[in-house]
Parts: sequence; structure tokens; C-alpha cells
Amino acid sequence: MDEVKIIEIKKSIFADNDKDAAELRKELKNKGVYLLNLMSSPGAGKTTTLIRLINLIKDKIRVAVMEADIDSDVDAVKISEATGVESIQLHTGGMCHLDAEMTRQGLDNVAVNNADLVILENVGNLVCPAEFDTGAVRNAMILSVPEGHDKPLKYPLMFTVCDLVVINKTDVLPYFDFNMEKCREYVHMRNPRAEIIPICAKTGEGVDALAEWILKEVSNWKQ
Amino acid sequence: MDEVKIIEIKKSIFADNDKDAAELRKELKNKGVYLLNLMSSPGAGKTTTLIRLINLIKDKIRVAVMEADIDSDVDAVKISEATGVESIQLHTGGMCHLDAEMTRQGLDNVAVNNADLVILENVGNLVCPAEFDTGAVRNAMILSVPEGHDKPLKYPLMFTVCDLVVINKTDVLPYFDFNMEKCREYVHMRNPRAEIIPICAKTGEGVDALAEWILKEVSNWKQ
Repeated sequence: MDEVKIIEIKKSIFADNDKDAAELRKELKNKGVYLLNLMSSPGAGKTTTLIRLINLIKDKIRVAVMEADIDSDVDAVKISEATGVESIQLHTGGMCHLDAEMTRQGLDNVAVNNADLVILENVGNLVCPAEFDTGAVRNAMILSVPEGHDKPLKYPLMFTVCDLVVINKTDVLPYFDFNMEKCREYVHMRNPRAEIIPICAKTGEGVDALAEWILKEVSNWKQ
Repeated sequence: MDEVKIIEIKKSIFADNDKDAAELRKELKNKGVYLLNLMSSPGAGKTTTLIRLINLIKDKIRVAVMEADIDSDVDAVKISEATGVESIQLHTGGMCHLDAEMTRQGLDNVAVNNADLVILENVGNLVCPAEFDTGAVRNAMILSVPEGHDKPLKYPLMFTVCDLVVINKTDVLPYFDFNMEKCREYVHMRNPRAEIIPICAKTGEGVDALAEWILKEVSNWKQ
């Protein structure tokens, strides 16, 4: 097993997270670094999706990953072993989200100047992470088929703040009562401009569309 | 659609939640009311499981349900329509968990004196709800097969505080890399005394074992 860097995140001292997030975004813009905040429920397939995605784009842009987790380092090790890109683990010490200052603590520990894209894998949770701007350029979330197409009705804020909704585990669509059209409708009820990309991270199906989306995003950001 | 009572939960003013929870438990003991706190990720099948379970036990004991949700009333309506038992919705106003005082606000609004068992369906989240004693007699959680058997490694506190782990969606075991033995091992690593009951809420398989567990629990509590 590879060893990965583990950062123990400290609670933020800044009172105004929105201001702090806007500042972080400006700094990243100046450095030409694109930060993506990736959220989901536990087990929706964030890590598997990232491995597929990174292996499709790592020859075109420089990628680094920050894995936020309550206290394991399973995901950072997996990403590092499967893709070879820099991957660090952020321990939140029980905290259920990351804000901009906590994200900054992570960024201070990746080789940000050697990355075009930094992906923050947020804590697996559809409630708290949605409430805090991390300073990311975009928020993305993965909804997996087994969770059901009604989740935008039940977790409104998460779907309101996300620019991209990846629908994962499409290979098991035949075994679940998941209505893709209804899902699209509910997502757009929360955010009419949200991009929706169905994929199967296990087989790789659809991940090319995700790669295309992120490459275009990064290229626009660097202009 | 039936109408259900919707309670807007207010933030707690009590500083010592553990003390408050212990007091609530004592009051419930005196009234002979068993409170079960049911937790899970979004989409793990809490509501479907409850409907199956309640229909198996409602002729033997009196059941009421409190559905905590950020702001919809989908679940309380579903439960009420499918089982006929009293079901109220607790709106947490964005809060990601319930503590004892918030649970008490809910209990004040169900006909507690006419119930042997009150089930609190907590907010769908494996992080925050684990941190607060609600005053329940037992904590239970539902882990669904698509989420993966490694969840006890990644959400240690949730599995430490749960007396019962229901493993749902066993009908899709053939389509996921879910190792039941490893799951048992990881759950018992967090809590060696945890009961594990595999079920399929969709087909009803295994729910009889869950019914047996809860009937025995309620009967012991009322002695």
C-alpha cells in the first residue's frame, strides 16, 4: 500500500465563510487552478468515479485530489494507487463538512502550483456540505441509482448548489425503480441550469462525457 | 393524499444533551413507551422498511412514527397511507440531526400515551445524527447493499452507537461487490454487541426477524 499524506483539519476561525470562499476562489483564479467540490451520499461511488475520470484526463491536465473523510485514509490510498496522481487525505475529526478555510488547509498541503485541477472529495453527506461554500469553482454531486430519483425533493439545498449532477450506477437501472426523466425534472426544479451526466463508474460508461465537461471547465477557467 | 401533521422543530436551548436524553428516556420508561431512533444514508430504504415492519407488528403493539426531514413531508404521508398508523413529519429547517430536546418537541405532538413504540426516522446522514443521543432506548441504522460493506470503516461513530444494523436491499447482492462476512466483521469491530439483520424491504424477506427483534425489545422495556 502506498503511503499518503494525512492532514488533520482544524476548525475554522473565520466568521465570514462566504467572503473567505470568494477570496480563495480569486487566489485560485490567479494561479490558474480549478477547484472542484465533489459531494454525495456515502457509497454513491465518488472514489470509483474519480479513478475512472482521472485516468481519462491525467495525460491532458495535471490533477491532484484531496479526500475528506472523518478518519480513515482508505480513499486517498485507493486514488493514489489507481491513478498515480497526488492524493492527500483530510481528516475532519468528526466534522460533517468543509468550509473555505478548511479547504485552504488542504490546499496548503498539495502541490497546487503543479496542478490545473484539484478535486475535493467532500464528506459523504447530502446535508451539511451543501451549506458551506468551499471556494470551489463548481459544485458537483453524485447521485447513485439505488438512492432513488426523489432525492432532489428531499435534499433541496444540495441540488440547488450543484452545477453538475452525475447519476452513477446506471448498470443497475433494471433492478431499481429509478425514473431518469423524473430525476432530471426534480434536479432542474432545484437548479434549472444544472448539467446532468449519467455514468457507470464500474464499467466506465459515460465517464467520457464527464471528462469532456471537466476539461472544458478547466480550460475556460484558465483563460 | 392524506394530510399529516408537520412540526417545525426549533433549535435546542439545552446545553447538556446527554443529561436531557437520559431524562427523556426515564420519562418514556415511566410511560411504557419505547422510542427507536432509526438512522441511515439517504436512499437506504428507511421508509420502505418501516412500512413493511409496521404492517407486521401493528396488530400486536401500538405504533407511531415521527419522520424527520429537512423540509418535505413525502415520508410521513407514505407511512400514513401504507400503514394507517399515526405518522407526523418533523421539519428540521436545515439542521442535520435531532437531539433529545428536538425529539421531545416531536413526542409532544404524537399521541404518545396511545403508543407502545414510537419510531423516529432521523435525518438521512451517517455523520451528524450519530453524535446526538435522542433519548431513544436503542439506536438502529440501515445500511443498504449498494453503499458497500466498508461503511463501518468510514463512519465509525455511527456503527459504534448502533445496537442494530439492518442490511437492506439483499435482492441486489448479485449485482454489487458486497461482502456480507466482511460487513459483519467491520460492524462488530465498531460494536461487538450489535445485532445484524439482513432484509429486503422491497420483497419483505427477513423483515419478520426485524419484527421479532423489536417486539422482544418493546416487551422487555415495558417490564
